[in-house]
Amino acid sequence: MSSHGFRFTIVARDGRARAGFLDTPHGRIPTPCFAPVGTQGAVKTVPPWDLKALGATLVLANTYHLYLRPGDERIARLGGLHRFMGWDGPILTDSGGFQIFSLQGLREVDDDGVTFRSHLDGSLHRFTPEKAIRVQENLGADLIMCLDECPPPLDYAYNVKALERTHRWAERCRAAHRRTDQALFGIVQGGVFEDLRTRSARFLVALDFPGYAIGGLSVGEPKADTYRILSLMDALLPEEKPRYLMGVGTLQDFVEAVARGVDLFDCVMPTRVARHGTALIWGGRLNLRNAAYAEDPRPIDETCECPTCRRFSRAYLRHLFNVGEPMAMYLTTLHNLHTMFRFMERLRQAILEGRFEAFRTAVAEALPAVSEPEPSDG
Amino acid sequence: MSSHGFRFTIVARDGRARAGFLDTPHGRIPTPCFAPVGTQGAVKTVPPWDLKALGATLVLANTYHLYLRPGDERIARLGGLHRFMGWDGPILTDSGGFQIFSLQGLREVDDDGVTFRSHLDGSLHRFTPEKAIRVQENLGADLIMCLDECPPPLDYAYNVKALERTHRWAERCRAAHRRTDQALFGIVQGGVFEDLRTRSARFLVALDFPGYAIGGLSVGEPKADTYRILSLMDALLPEEKPRYLMGVGTLQDFVEAVARGVDLFDCVMPTRVARHGTALIWGGRLNLRNAAYAEDPRPIDETCECPTCRRFSRAYLRHLFNVGEPMAMYLTTLHNLHTMFRFMERLRQAILEGRFEAFRTAVAEALPAVSEPEPSDG
Repeated sequence: MSSHGFRFTIVARDGRARAGFLDTPHGRIPTPCFAPVGTQGAVKTVPPWDLKALGATLVLANTYHLYLRPGDERIARLGGLHRFMGWDGPILTDSGGFQIFSLQGLREVDDDGVTFRSHLDGSLHRFTPEKAIRVQENLGADLIMCLDECPPPLDYAYNVKALERTHRWAERCRAAHRRTDQALFGIVQGGVFEDLRTRSARFLVALDFPGYAIGGLSVGEPKADTYRILSLMDALLPEEKPRYLMGVGTLQDFVEAVARGVDLFDCVMPTRVARHGTALIWGGRLNLRNAAYAEDPRPIDETCECPTCRRFSRAYLRHLFNVGEPMAMYLTTLHNLHTMFRFMERLRQAILEGRFEAFRTAVAEALPAVSEPEPSDG
Repeated sequence: MSSHGFRFTIVARDGRARAGFLDTPHGRIPTPCFAPVGTQGAVKTVPPWDLKALGATLVLANTYHLYLRPGDERIARLGGLHRFMGWDGPILTDSGGFQIFSLQGLREVDDDGVTFRSHLDGSLHRFTPEKAIRVQENLGADLIMCLDECPPPLDYAYNVKALERTHRWAERCRAAHRRTDQALFGIVQGGVFEDLRTRSARFLVALDFPGYAIGGLSVGEPKADTYRILSLMDALLPEEKPRYLMGVGTLQDFVEAVARGVDLFDCVMPTRVARHGTALIWGGRLNLRNAAYAEDPRPIDETCECPTCRRFSRAYLRHLFNVGEPMAMYLTTLHNLHTMFRFMERLRQAILEGRFEAFRTAVAEALPAVSEPEPSDG
């Protein structure tokens, strides 16, 4: 990488899976890594000292939301996002593109950029590649993303058109980026189409980004397509650079993506479902609102060593959800994040010890229930 | 005291103020002591490990709420309230009386007890003195309260009538109470009327309770009446027993009550106002929702060493409240509780060092703003 303070080191390979370290100016990220999502500059309900204690090594924040509130320039004046949110470890920001292209209201894209209305007050805003970089430089995350257009994954004609723009924007982002203490990732798009994905990967690899994100997957397409495209990405992206699969996902997805050479993940699922009373366990999920737990003295998971499982019963958590105590969301989020981090540690350890395929098989057998639908709020 | 595991030791006196220790089966409470309120078996947003780290030594829980949900018998089957809520320190429960007599709907009192409708589903319930004790024995708190009737403080006729009942109920509570690992407090009532308060104190003192609560104050009467009645209580209650002023209050109130021999306090104010964005500081209060703090890099209080002030700016807290992040309530509650506990520590230290009057004067001068109205939700 050309950026300062960054280094990606692969320390073990097992099949196509790899384990390593991504060093950043704010610390070392063991890979494969799961990053919890702090949409508005906070992982909902979880203070940074808990994130550290749970073993978080990378936190994601959303450029679109922070740009609107409290504003990227304000965060810059306050010393940057790390200081603002009290998290001194590595941070990744997205470009804002995904949120903008998910907006229901006005959103007009042209070759130069995209004009949109704020979901908060309807005010007009415009993002260009240069603007997306400037906002992310103001925030000051360690890992930042090019502005990309995010089309529906199964619409070929739209994907062709969007891909051209995404490539021009990637060039402009690269040219606009000045801070040397940030690594700017290119984002491969192209939906479920191998010709487009191939073109996209080749184009971006030629621009020599310090890392590559894989966008536009797990957004509704069949799992077989997801995995097929991930295998293609694995074949086309440079071995020595970190690969980040955006917005994915479940424990099963992690294993299948790692089996195809992915290093970094983020997903709102573990924190979002926790706030709805869903606790993640290896064999599936528990709905803690269920009356069946009203007198259950067991912890969520008897094998779990998270702060919640060490102290509280399912009966207590069910009571807290039942009466609307906000601590219910916090305690369940702690458990779910702990479960994700422990899973990634075990996955990484399996790679280091050359038994990744056995781990993959065990997970596939233990996790029949992970594909149930999720609640859909923010 | 006749109960096992309890001992109240006064280690210093300064004027009428006293500092000591109240030992209970779940640990030692340095007095004067402020107890945060865990209405439904949780101090809202604050897990027990934070309470311990902040210096909480006693937590209050509400019998009325826990009786309704999840039910006192259920809590007993789950091993009692300490285990249920994951707090191994001392707990105090009220009798349920105050909540029942605050209900807006049906509430019919007779000499034997009180019939009321649940605020949740309108279902009919009845509390007698024996029932209030049984429920509190099921919960298993260290300090428990007699069932009392809570009349408006300025209505003499009502207070006369209620007092008779409260005294009969105190006798019955005392007779019904079996657990020797709980200390049952009598509650002095009588509104703002010295003759009634005197009669009440003398009656309850004759029953020789291990501690005395002072009920029915700071419920709307003038401050001068509050302090006058507290001075009277100080003259009538036995020196060697702990005194608990229920539901009070502000820093100013603590000092004035301690100056009149009070040892224990509870109040929802610090935690409730925190959830509305109000941070307590020595000189008054900050409304963290105020746009004036949007770029304020200072902590809530530059002299404060709480986890929130050590890491976060007013600008960040204002942002969290502004975008509706639940962590805003948690971080502000941590600060407010820390402020209360530090205040009580300093107050206690002043007594130990024989400079309580100087402390009292300094507080009166520093706290002009404590009487502003408070938000009124639960």
